[in-house]
Amino acid sequence: MLFCHIDYLDENFCVRKAGYVRVKGARIEAVSETPLASEEGEEVYDGRGRLLMPALVNAHAHAPMTLLRGWGENLNLQDWLNQRIFPFEAKLTDEAICAGTTLALAEMIRTGTVSSTEMYFGAEAMARALVASGAKMNLSVGVTCFGDGDLADQPRQQEAERLIKNWNGAGEGRLVADLSLHAEYTSTPKAVRQMAQRAAGTGLNMQVHMAETKTETDECVERHGKTPARYFYDLGLFDAHTTAAHGVWLTDEDIPLLKEKDVTIASCPASNMKLASGFCRTPALLAAGVRVALGTDGAASNNNLDMFEEMKLFALAPKGAFGDPRAVSAQQALRAATLSGAQAQGRWDTGAVKAGNRADLIVLDCSAPWWTPGHDRAADIVYAAKGTDVCLTMADGRVLYRDGEYLTIDIERARHDAAAAAAAIAAQF
Amino acid sequence: MLFCHIDYLDENFCVRKAGYVRVKGARIEAVSETPLASEEGEEVYDGRGRLLMPALVNAHAHAPMTLLRGWGENLNLQDWLNQRIFPFEAKLTDEAICAGTTLALAEMIRTGTVSSTEMYFGAEAMARALVASGAKMNLSVGVTCFGDGDLADQPRQQEAERLIKNWNGAGEGRLVADLSLHAEYTSTPKAVRQMAQRAAGTGLNMQVHMAETKTETDECVERHGKTPARYFYDLGLFDAHTTAAHGVWLTDEDIPLLKEKDVTIASCPASNMKLASGFCRTPALLAAGVRVALGTDGAASNNNLDMFEEMKLFALAPKGAFGDPRAVSAQQALRAATLSGAQAQGRWDTGAVKAGNRADLIVLDCSAPWWTPGHDRAADIVYAAKGTDVCLTMADGRVLYRDGEYLTIDIERARHDAAAAAAAIAAQF
Repeated sequence: MLFCHIDYLDENFCVRKAGYVRVKGARIEAVSETPLASEEGEEVYDGRGRLLMPALVNAHAHAPMTLLRGWGENLNLQDWLNQRIFPFEAKLTDEAICAGTTLALAEMIRTGTVSSTEMYFGAEAMARALVASGAKMNLSVGVTCFGDGDLADQPRQQEAERLIKNWNGAGEGRLVADLSLHAEYTSTPKAVRQMAQRAAGTGLNMQVHMAETKTETDECVERHGKTPARYFYDLGLFDAHTTAAHGVWLTDEDIPLLKEKDVTIASCPASNMKLASGFCRTPALLAAGVRVALGTDGAASNNNLDMFEEMKLFALAPKGAFGDPRAVSAQQALRAATLSGAQAQGRWDTGAVKAGNRADLIVLDCSAPWWTPGHDRAADIVYAAKGTDVCLTMADGRVLYRDGEYLTIDIERARHDAAAAAAAIAAQF
Repeated sequence: MLFCHIDYLDENFCVRKAGYVRVKGARIEAVSETPLASEEGEEVYDGRGRLLMPALVNAHAHAPMTLLRGWGENLNLQDWLNQRIFPFEAKLTDEAICAGTTLALAEMIRTGTVSSTEMYFGAEAMARALVASGAKMNLSVGVTCFGDGDLADQPRQQEAERLIKNWNGAGEGRLVADLSLHAEYTSTPKAVRQMAQRAAGTGLNMQVHMAETKTETDECVERHGKTPARYFYDLGLFDAHTTAAHGVWLTDEDIPLLKEKDVTIASCPASNMKLASGFCRTPALLAAGVRVALGTDGAASNNNLDMFEEMKLFALAPKGAFGDPRAVSAQQALRAATLSGAQAQGRWDTGAVKAGNRADLIVLDCSAPWWTPGHDRAADIVYAAKGTDVCLTMADGRVLYRDGEYLTIDIERARHDAAAAAAAIAAQF
């Protein structure tokens, strides 16, 4: 496909006018500010009034939780978890997880996300949905381990090993299996050490929840005499290529540890506000050179998977929380939502509109009123645009959504199956 | 029009299933949970898979500032105002203001807002655009007054008097002219007193910016020995039916004054975050029974006019800022964005789906993935929905937008005129 006369977000996250981008197979073959001639049989895409940018990467999500969207509102965290979320999750079947994942994928693809970093359970059911959709995921099973148990004996770790064995690299590499430790407070130092060893032995990426709430952070300091970041650092978890979700309660001393180990913080501003966890110190992290990516968290605490809304919050929330209107720029939000997320996933050849990269791209229709007058297109994308402005979503050069049509997902069936699965569980309460 | 088998938001901001709502002329004639038979010649609207709710009211906006969308990003407040906003505004012609207002109206109507509370200048040009659109505005000219001058001699007040004389009640009452004082720091006690007298003599509503920033609030205390709210209260400004925008830095002592005088706080969470002003104490205000409405502020500090995004922020931001996940409920956000805004405008017969009320209504298409599974429709509207889910917008029973078509605005021309006006000014910098 040859995108012609199309504005595009360049490698520095600035918008260039009326360029040409050629996609061949799974890759971007050429990016040019001057016209490229079309080749025989090549589709020519008229890009006037549209904007091409890297597809968004959701750096922390729990896709099947679309089934819990709106299930448990206006509650304190403990009531939310214990009375609503955990009891519902206990009833999730593989079929329900597959349906919830497919619905999540439809929502993500519709709003410009082609890849997400996932920690949940029922990972093989998620894998089936993912491969069918044509999108990408770094899939992991959030392992918990209490008492004196060995990591290898934990049912969740055994599920993770099956995922790794059966699914890692599936869909021409679109599915990547990660390791993942649920959190400090749901595991033991022994389990963390064993998880770090498992990562060293396999070279797999690591996912973990870290410093999401003040309580979690304070209790970790009480238990171990150190912050969650220092604790994981000392136990070797960060020797793996790690994405740590949330990072709301990081200290000044934590930040250099993350930088040293190239840990990515996956910030989830909507979820952190909704659950009253607080505000991630994004400006301090970015200033220290820590990679910060962006996630929606699960739909139960957001309540959608729209990375456009999340970009806006990523840029707005630190300005309000830290009293500085320059705290996070539109360019920094765009990088967090694309390139930084891709790098966090260990996908080093995507996340930017650049020749040679994988063609993970989206096109935005700039005809809605909020795109006028267009003084600053980067700001327009972050602050004014909506996920529904996406008119084309492409992963590895394959079109997944275009002009109202889902090309890999039967959307009517996806909505029906998810609604039926959720209703069947809700009826048991 | 007879809406059949449609879910709707009732007077208590709870969603009822599959009801019937009849609109006749400018009013809602009937709301029923059981079927209503259609009358001869009446359009029957199939509401299955859709949701009817009161149209949104934007309680604080500066419509022509759509021309400044993205003009001045990532700057400190003083640089933003002095280097970017004021110099651009100084070059706005009546024609540009009319074009910016029409673009704003298109954006509002597209995303479900039919009425906005406006403080700007060039108000007669705004009035022309408003009347043509079929939407509603409470229009005012933000008056400033320095030195020893009398209010009546200020050019902005004279403009306000022309607006009141020529336009109040235009468009069958859709246009309401309000009085407005820009702010404490741009006026004198004498001018405030004279403004209060003018309101007493006319019965007109009042608009004012109040306690938006810490600096403004601290300097008011320094100058007058009292907070902005106490200052306005003492000078009689609140004896008018008043909307005070922002109210970020209200004290515990301010709150009972607002309640006593039935002052509405128009909270603008996106703008308050973007300009690093802080977080409105919405929960404390609501607990005290103060009416809190919701505004987007101008597009330069938001950067759009989408009240769905604003509702989400209204519910999310206080949870994060004040550490309580129950700080503001979805129902409270819905009320702020509809009924409270209408009441703040002095429009007491709209803002809820209720027989006898004016038919200011919107219909949401619930077919996008983020509407499934639908455990909690109020939460879905506030946290998951997008402005683009609006598929019908109606003011006083007249359809302004439906299924992709603007019925009162030539959208191509609106975009063209606004872009041209903005470009002509930008070219002078």
